[in-house]
Amino acid sequence: MAEANRQIVLDRLPAGDKLAREHFKLIETPAPSPGEGEVLLRTRYISLDAANRAWMQGATYRSALEGGQVMAGGALAEVVESNVGHLAPGDMIFADTGWQDYAVLPGQRLAKLPAARLAEGEPVTHLMSVYGIAGLTAYFGLLECGQPKAGETVVVSAAAGSVGSIVGQIARIKGCRVVGIAGGAEKGRWLVDELGFDAAVDYKSPEFKRLLRAEVPDGVDVYFDNTGGAVFEAVLFAMKNFGRIACCGALSQYDGAPPPHGPRGIPGLIVTKRLTLRGFVVMDFDDQREKALADLQGWVASGQLKVQEDIVEGLENTPAALIGLLAGDNRGKRMVKVR
Amino acid sequence: MAEANRQIVLDRLPAGDKLAREHFKLIETPAPSPGEGEVLLRTRYISLDAANRAWMQGATYRSALEGGQVMAGGALAEVVESNVGHLAPGDMIFADTGWQDYAVLPGQRLAKLPAARLAEGEPVTHLMSVYGIAGLTAYFGLLECGQPKAGETVVVSAAAGSVGSIVGQIARIKGCRVVGIAGGAEKGRWLVDELGFDAAVDYKSPEFKRLLRAEVPDGVDVYFDNTGGAVFEAVLFAMKNFGRIACCGALSQYDGAPPPHGPRGIPGLIVTKRLTLRGFVVMDFDDQREKALADLQGWVASGQLKVQEDIVEGLENTPAALIGLLAGDNRGKRMVKVR
Repeated sequence: MAEANRQIVLDRLPAGDKLAREHFKLIETPAPSPGEGEVLLRTRYISLDAANRAWMQGATYRSALEGGQVMAGGALAEVVESNVGHLAPGDMIFADTGWQDYAVLPGQRLAKLPAARLAEGEPVTHLMSVYGIAGLTAYFGLLECGQPKAGETVVVSAAAGSVGSIVGQIARIKGCRVVGIAGGAEKGRWLVDELGFDAAVDYKSPEFKRLLRAEVPDGVDVYFDNTGGAVFEAVLFAMKNFGRIACCGALSQYDGAPPPHGPRGIPGLIVTKRLTLRGFVVMDFDDQREKALADLQGWVASGQLKVQEDIVEGLENTPAALIGLLAGDNRGKRMVKVR
Repeated sequence: MAEANRQIVLDRLPAGDKLAREHFKLIETPAPSPGEGEVLLRTRYISLDAANRAWMQGATYRSALEGGQVMAGGALAEVVESNVGHLAPGDMIFADTGWQDYAVLPGQRLAKLPAARLAEGEPVTHLMSVYGIAGLTAYFGLLECGQPKAGETVVVSAAAGSVGSIVGQIARIKGCRVVGIAGGAEKGRWLVDELGFDAAVDYKSPEFKRLLRAEVPDGVDVYFDNTGGAVFEAVLFAMKNFGRIACCGALSQYDGAPPPHGPRGIPGLIVTKRLTLRGFVVMDFDDQREKALADLQGWVASGQLKVQEDIVEGLENTPAALIGLLAGDNRGKRMVKVR
């Protein structure tokens, strides 16, 4: 291939400071060629996730990133050339291509995405949002770890994000009262007016704790935590006896120095309120994936679940799109349309 | 009754400071008489528990104590006079008599302890230690919340205490490797030599974290936490993926000012390690009580479970016995033989 491959390199790791444009650089190299057992992929939509930032800190379910390499990240990609039998040009896959136009990956562990999952006219991006990691994370975290029952009160943080926006809608489908925590009054209105949340609370308000308490006068049965930090602590103190906390991420702790201490009330409140806290990552539930996808598809088809996608144009804008995501400027699943 | 009733009054609540002798005073009043539906009890053995201290802080499963009243606490007591049909003089019960020679309580909710549970010659105090709250707390916390499997590594804090000493022995019975955390080398030797723990670690050592790591080179599957605080944090960082933490108490946080912050790594480590933390109190498992007691009895009878009791003589020494317990000077279940 003579074509150029634009690549965004993580030039240096942010060492305890906030992620910024200067941590990245855009370079061009010749597009690679696939060897035996390999596949050449063209990235179409790059997924942006808080996890991109977490990988820079090490200590996650994948090994830490190093400076000087193409920035890691998942993408919806199209097979251009295949040296494995089960993939052919034109097939769509989801893989860790990194932030670049083209990637060569071993074909063995790549699986073709089932286009049949999409309804007539449904955008291919749904495979990466509601039927992708975001949708499955929301589904398993809420239903398996949170175990909500109809009539219970569910609170979700980063509620306007890719996962949170789905968590809240599934909780509504299950008959729960849903309170979303998000930054700013405008996002709150969007959650209530567009997504059907019962209420929203602005964590940036100096009155945050009081506002939260006012929206959950009888306490919280299920908390889906995406943020950690001060928001986690505030909800912890508002939990009901026998409440459940699904620990999905610690967004507040990814970008910048790690906090010197954890939330107060641990483990004292866990005991007196008999709480269950459970951490998970979506891969832990791979064996229940088909059931989850069938449910999600049904809810999308019936209009009960609105898919929220936040699509940024252009590979060169990927760093800014991630930095913005970490600051909470997205609505639903953020991705970059590569070209 | 003309007899005198010695009573230990909680003269004033410790307000953020450590509990001391001067918070209590001993008074004498006439022994009370039971009214309709009431029972007169003579306390025989007063149970001493970290919970006595926690009640002074409020925010537990029972209402907070107030100064000026007889200090609350459970005891093995004997029925002296009964105005209810199901209890007769000489029956033994366990009830919140408070710290005094005699108490009058409504009879309705009191149940006679089944003396039949005790083997020939087995001390009556076993009803308050291994077959009482301590034994049941250890049993349910470890087996229900911790879900240990043979071959796994179990760590327990306050391991020489009433609950911890039983937790470690049950974990051994279940085929686990057991590491106890306790204060001082002597206690550690006792845990290993007398109770059969595989290892013990001294949390008072400046090398505590390193010593702990050395004893759990592959990480911790199940942690039974009695202490919270720095010990909790150290074990949290040593947990294996999919580990379970049974949150039983926060002993380190009962006596003195509440800590300004919680342990680091919450909720980040809960997510990346996919931990489950579950708080409980023993009453939550009342429906499984008979099975638990049958198991405990079997292990005591076979000699697999050694009952550890730490009996202090004399009602007047009850405050000092509690203060000592909070400082960790007990071995197994501490109680006061009233006279």
